[in-house]
Amino acid sequence: MIIVMKSGADPEEIERAKSTMIELGYEPHPIEGVLRTVIGAIGDERGKPEDVEALSILPGVEKVIPILPAHKLASREFKKEDTEVNVQGVIVGGKKIPVIAGPCSVESEEQLMEVAHAIKKAGASMLRGGAYKPRSSPYTFQGMGVEGLKLLAQAREETGLPIVTEILDVKHLDAVVEYADVLQIGARNSQNYALLKEVGKSKMPVLLKRGMSTTIKEFLMCSEYILAEGNEDVMLCERGIRTFETATRNTFDLNAIPVLRERTHLPIVADPSHGTGYWQYVTPMALASIAAGADAVIVEVHNNPEVAVSDGGQSLKPKKFVDMMERCAAVAKAVGREL
Amino acid sequence: MIIVMKSGADPEEIERAKSTMIELGYEPHPIEGVLRTVIGAIGDERGKPEDVEALSILPGVEKVIPILPAHKLASREFKKEDTEVNVQGVIVGGKKIPVIAGPCSVESEEQLMEVAHAIKKAGASMLRGGAYKPRSSPYTFQGMGVEGLKLLAQAREETGLPIVTEILDVKHLDAVVEYADVLQIGARNSQNYALLKEVGKSKMPVLLKRGMSTTIKEFLMCSEYILAEGNEDVMLCERGIRTFETATRNTFDLNAIPVLRERTHLPIVADPSHGTGYWQYVTPMALASIAAGADAVIVEVHNNPEVAVSDGGQSLKPKKFVDMMERCAAVAKAVGREL
Amino acid sequence: MIIVMKSGADPEEIERAKSTMIELGYEPHPIEGVLRTVIGAIGDERGKPEDVEALSILPGVEKVIPILPAHKLASREFKKEDTEVNVQGVIVGGKKIPVIAGPCSVESEEQLMEVAHAIKKAGASMLRGGAYKPRSSPYTFQGMGVEGLKLLAQAREETGLPIVTEILDVKHLDAVVEYADVLQIGARNSQNYALLKEVGKSKMPVLLKRGMSTTIKEFLMCSEYILAEGNEDVMLCERGIRTFETATRNTFDLNAIPVLRERTHLPIVADPSHGTGYWQYVTPMALASIAAGADAVIVEVHNNPEVAVSDGGQSLKPKKFVDMMERCAAVAKAVGREL
Amino acid sequence: MIIVMKSGADPEEIERAKSTMIELGYEPHPIEGVLRTVIGAIGDERGKPEDVEALSILPGVEKVIPILPAHKLASREFKKEDTEVNVQGVIVGGKKIPVIAGPCSVESEEQLMEVAHAIKKAGASMLRGGAYKPRSSPYTFQGMGVEGLKLLAQAREETGLPIVTEILDVKHLDAVVEYADVLQIGARNSQNYALLKEVGKSKMPVLLKRGMSTTIKEFLMCSEYILAEGNEDVMLCERGIRTFETATRNTFDLNAIPVLRERTHLPIVADPSHGTGYWQYVTPMALASIAAGADAVIVEVHNNPEVAVSDGGQSLKPKKFVDMMERCAAVAKAVGREL
Repeated sequence: MIIVMKSGADPEEIERAKSTMIELGYEPHPIEGVLRTVIGAIGDERGKPEDVEALSILPGVEKVIPILPAHKLASREFKKEDTEVNVQGVIVGGKKIPVIAGPCSVESEEQLMEVAHAIKKAGASMLRGGAYKPRSSPYTFQGMGVEGLKLLAQAREETGLPIVTEILDVKHLDAVVEYADVLQIGARNSQNYALLKEVGKSKMPVLLKRGMSTTIKEFLMCSEYILAEGNEDVMLCERGIRTFETATRNTFDLNAIPVLRERTHLPIVADPSHGTGYWQYVTPMALASIAAGADAVIVEVHNNPEVAVSDGGQSLKPKKFVDMMERCAAVAKAVGREL
Repeated sequence: MIIVMKSGADPEEIERAKSTMIELGYEPHPIEGVLRTVIGAIGDERGKPEDVEALSILPGVEKVIPILPAHKLASREFKKEDTEVNVQGVIVGGKKIPVIAGPCSVESEEQLMEVAHAIKKAGASMLRGGAYKPRSSPYTFQGMGVEGLKLLAQAREETGLPIVTEILDVKHLDAVVEYADVLQIGARNSQNYALLKEVGKSKMPVLLKRGMSTTIKEFLMCSEYILAEGNEDVMLCERGIRTFETATRNTFDLNAIPVLRERTHLPIVADPSHGTGYWQYVTPMALASIAAGADAVIVEVHNNPEVAVSDGGQSLKPKKFVDMMERCAAVAKAVGREL
Repeated sequence: MIIVMKSGADPEEIERAKSTMIELGYEPHPIEGVLRTVIGAIGDERGKPEDVEALSILPGVEKVIPILPAHKLASREFKKEDTEVNVQGVIVGGKKIPVIAGPCSVESEEQLMEVAHAIKKAGASMLRGGAYKPRSSPYTFQGMGVEGLKLLAQAREETGLPIVTEILDVKHLDAVVEYADVLQIGARNSQNYALLKEVGKSKMPVLLKRGMSTTIKEFLMCSEYILAEGNEDVMLCERGIRTFETATRNTFDLNAIPVLRERTHLPIVADPSHGTGYWQYVTPMALASIAAGADAVIVEVHNNPEVAVSDGGQSLKPKKFVDMMERCAAVAKAVGREL
Repeated sequence: MIIVMKSGADPEEIERAKSTMIELGYEPHPIEGVLRTVIGAIGDERGKPEDVEALSILPGVEKVIPILPAHKLASREFKKEDTEVNVQGVIVGGKKIPVIAGPCSVESEEQLMEVAHAIKKAGASMLRGGAYKPRSSPYTFQGMGVEGLKLLAQAREETGLPIVTEILDVKHLDAVVEYADVLQIGARNSQNYALLKEVGKSKMPVLLKRGMSTTIKEFLMCSEYILAEGNEDVMLCERGIRTFETATRNTFDLNAIPVLRERTHLPIVADPSHGTGYWQYVTPMALASIAAGADAVIVEVHNNPEVAVSDGGQSLKPKKFVDMMERCAAVAKAVGREL
């Protein structure tokens, strides 16, 4: 930590800052500048948030600057080599780029089986589908619940594809853990710390989506909640942030891919369906995700988007999905990977 | 709803759009324009999200525009007169502007009683304090839990001030309901629909904070989740949104006050402490909140912010709080209200 | 400046960083921490942008943190007491809060004189009106040009109100300087440095609007361009920033008022008309601006907003303006000032 | 246009809205809904901004919804086939993807020639370099001016690469036109309409950068200013928007590429250097740009970024640039194009 004193801070104030630092376990190291004094704090460069806060409001202190980011277990400094998450034999974080596909919501047996077989045939590696849905309106379809989970398990049996499904509420944890292979934490729950902790305790692979207004720094702290419970199987999923631009539903922030690659060892998943919100932008942005370095891609596929009960407009039809897979394979190869 | 066809949409596509509208329960009313056909849908002008979605992806349809916002129970159209929420005799939404004050976190009996008596003496109407804390890092203080709730109840007994405290997790609901007078839903949980529904069922007064990236439209839909469970005692709290500006911790969006006033009958609370993130901006922005029309103000007060375990830098000391109260009283009077 | 070395930076890299600092005129002051070395740079704590850049890309350097903001002449450190700008006898930055009012665009003699007399009667201190208009579409009205400037001068003669008008283009400078009392730089030109320099040379009072995506730090640097040319008569105008919220045309950032008050001696003007974009929010936000500490308020008034050629929807009618003035006077008094 | 009346609008108000529409040249077509009346306006579906404004503030009108976007000449509806801009034989908008490279600022003969030869050898198609620089601080290097332009011309002579350089100020137009092959409009000037018009009159190819807070819709309107002057050679350049995320200097919005492709016939250029702000993210995002469909890529290359007078931290060294070119060629091939 670096403590910047106000210009004109008096010696007493500087002494108080130094003694507070010592109390908090740091070794103060003052530098007298031309206009002001700056005090380096030797100790944990990370700077515990409460220490930063405590020092920053002392009289005569202008600001406190932590030197290191606050996340530990997720950091490259903690672990240099890339983490590979193994989902029933499907590796996320290796040379091969798995594609996760399926409908936004599980709606019926017929719908799910049709989509599951279609994506399997096109080369997808996992099946996604929501049994519990976070909907902005209380008056719309809220998911099939346990019935949906059972259909997902049936689809896995028929196709062999592992299942990714969202967990919305701690009280559904037992049911979801029973049927799913990957627990998805949605964007609206990315800072629901109660849920993150429970999911950490479950020891199941987790697909953690970035919140709509979550910085990359905070996103890593969200993963830290899961890692700190001893669960190392965390996949970070970029799915778009909220900005002033309305031509896309969110602003799919592909820059997060190289930034995360630099800062963390965890695998990175890209979700161009939620990222853009419109099916016609999904394929170009899936290609771009792979070119930028994504370890996996997750997209929505629906056999009949016109009658989908949620997010129909961002779903690809199976035929378009086949086309996307072919084009993704070509780009993957161009960047030294494979689909 | 208005359905805008693509220029060049063929008659078959227009027919399909019309027949789909009829299936969904709307009466189509086409207008042939110079460049394209537009179809008005008579029925529920609100436009159910799934209907909008279903129509918008039909072949030949360019876009679908709902005419009315999706919230109902929270709207001025549903209820013209302002709602007054009664918290143990303190009215929020009337001529008098209650001030809610207290520490971010309950830390100890001594701290809480000292602050509670100080704010009571300065004229506050309710006591706030967190027993469960949503913290961005898993390595920092997470709240005193039930012990904190008991201290809050003790403070209420000593001062007569009703208690506002945050509910983070459905599993704490029984405990929080037992001790609190107002359930606060924090910004990070504003779209945690599972929690909103439970809180709705509780029938307790709710202080619902706006999420960091929640639009006013979505904020009203969040309140709809609570109202739809039959709980009418919802207070909407503006507490800052996330923007590119970093001089303040959030961008406290005071514009939300007149906008909400126009659109909803629910009372509006302003939180300049979280809104700005720095104690020195709290008083000017509290004054501005009242001038803009807020029905209540909630601020953080700590007897010793330097050692606060959370958010110390945005807390007022009791002496500054006294000053704020006096100045707020003057502005309240200038706009025809009273503190 | 503080130079943070990477963990694992070798001694040669640390030496190179130190010698580069010396070349750039700083005295290096290394602190060896537990995980990494940090080097304090004694010299200009402000840290010239090019020095920060040059040091930050040296091998082994993780980042460079400037200690002081880059603006000088605009800073409170440079000048402690508030600046008062004198516009033909109207003081901006004193106890009295002048209100600047008028139409968005000058449209005709009849329109301008009617509005000018109405606002004069209601107590306004200056007349605003655009002769050159920045319009997002090339197909809409672009302003009356010199004819508009002449009408403004005529209105000044009839009412005694000084004139505030926008300068869009360096080539109009002579004409605008001839007729105007205050040169307004609009939000879209707030980083048009060529124009800022010319306006600085003019020595006329300048009303500098914040850009839609300009941080407060950058806004102060924009004013620095004018101040650096020797022109000290700069008024900073908050007029809304661009965020994800669309219920208002911009997000009028009132927090900027106390933040600017702390950081600069320049007077602060609030523009609730552009800030919110809707006439019905103008009065509450004008009241809030004064409560937050604004030194002046600028609003749009039009005698006939329905036929206004620009921004009609955010203009007050003269009658509403009279009401706003009365209410503003009450709030001004409540915060120890006067209209 | 669709005019939505308030619920409870009286017949007189509806009549007034209809008669105003007729005056403005539209044919009104009312639809009486369950809760309110909606009036379709047959005529120019685009809805002139002043007509929208005029109608939206009539008594009883809730809002006015234009059906078509306001840009015309830039739209796909106006011109279906892709525009190819020919810059001295280099085609932007065809199958081949030209790469434009060079230093942020022209600093010296030695620097420019070294970089120019290096990028030429690596396969770049045009040379970029700034002679006039928009700098956020008035105290930093502002560019070499005409001397810089002359060096650019010399580099063109030596390498055969056409020159792209920024025009900041109308008064430099003659000089820039004399030496440059492409006029670049920077992000800060993207809504400097005076400059856009002049550049439109010049009939030179224009590289128009998106502003930091410019929506895609507005970006197209900016291009319309140039097109409306009869200059059809406009290239649209995505270079990052301002959001809450600070891990990258801007949020490089790759989604803009497929969105622009759908809406306009103009060629699309991607700038990952400004888009991300850090050299280590430039190559992955250049690859992603090509995968997303960019027609050209512009990047900063500097022989010695440590001593660059501007933007050194986002510049690639020539060796890294060679690597980027090879990898870009592979991705271009994978998406059916070539470098």
